Amino acid sequence: MANHKIISFVGSDQGAWDIAAIERISGNPINMASRLSILKQNVSPGEFGNVGWIFKAVISNIRYTTRSEKTELDRDGRGLNQPEFDCAVMIPIKKSDTWWAMTQDERRKVFEEDSRHIAMSMPYLPFISRQLHHSRDLGEEFDFITWFEFSSVHVHAFDKLCSTLRRSKEWEFVTRESEVRLRRIVV
Amino acid sequence: MANHKIISFVGSDQGAWDIAAIERISGNPINMASRLSILKQNVSPGEFGNVGWIFKAVISNIRYTTRSEKTELDRDGRGLNQPEFDCAVMIPIKKSDTWWAMTQDERRKVFEEDSRHIAMSMPYLPFISRQLHHSRDLGEEFDFITWFEFSSVHVHAFDKLCSTLRRSKEWEFVTRESEVRLRRIVV
Repeated sequence: MANHKIISFVGSDQGAWDIAAIERISGNPINMASRLSILKQNVSPGEFGNVGWIFKAVISNIRYTTRSEKTELDRDGRGLNQPEFDCAVMIPIKKSDTWWAMTQDERRKVFEEDSRHIAMSMPYLPFISRQLHHSRDLGEEFDFITWFEFSSVHVHAFDKLCSTLRRSKEWEFVTRESEVRLRRIVV
Repeated sequence: MANHKIISFVGSDQGAWDIAAIERISGNPINMASRLSILKQNVSPGEFGNVGWIFKAVISNIRYTTRSEKTELDRDGRGLNQPEFDCAVMIPIKKSDTWWAMTQDERRKVFEEDSRHIAMSMPYLPFISRQLHHSRDLGEEFDFITWFEFSSVHVHAFDKLCSTLRRSKEWEFVTRESEVRLRRIVV
């Protein structure tokens, strides 16, 4: 009966990632927490100490990417867990009812033809890895949990990627966003 | 913490719909049950007698439809719960890994340009209403629960709609499908 696809992002005082900063970008802020753990299961708050939040999400099929775009993404992307990736950023995002009422062609147009979400991200692929997680159909407070990993030497490139995306037409439909900056705990 | 979007389709000995027949179309069959109830919440089997299955799903945003198609669908569609709709059919469907690994443009091409899923369904809209429910991201055994309602005088039209869809290219990606024929219980 349990949803075996669920991934839980837990902000508490436990976990392999140290929370360096949480910044509210838009909408209601999220609570503070000192550590992040990512678990491939549905968890309950009682299992953790000082829980700030638990965000649940799944990895799903791609929704906008075309075959030619995916070929480029697969060629240049390196995947998560590279040895030099000591930084991560978790960005929970909620989009407006207007966004979700749009048809597929209307959303695709804003996402790529207007905002160049994929094309603009391409140059960053060799050193910033990304995994999108979907939350909306789980009834969660955010629609997406986006996860980025990179080396601390590329932190400025990451900042530039974020600021470019946030100036795009797509971001006019973002109603709530926070940014959680993380450092991998070396044991 | 609960997913407030969940709709539960429960096959048991309770509910407002009488199960007239269950037919396996492809893949593993589903259990028999005598009645169907649809509840807008997450339920557990202990709440029902003689449970054959509980399928969970959510109503989500549209994935393939364009604005011009939606305008036509909205103009001709009548919605569920019309007074003359004494028949319903629930069709749980699972698609192959190949389908889900396809990019958005590839899936759209099979769905509409090759299979005419929307265009072919259009003539039936004035007398057959339909609601799609998504299950895949909930980790369910089926990917979709499709629900149709119509008057018993249009049962042959419904059969024709199904057989046309099942001969389409899109259906080459369907790995499991059952058809549950229902009659509304008049009290």
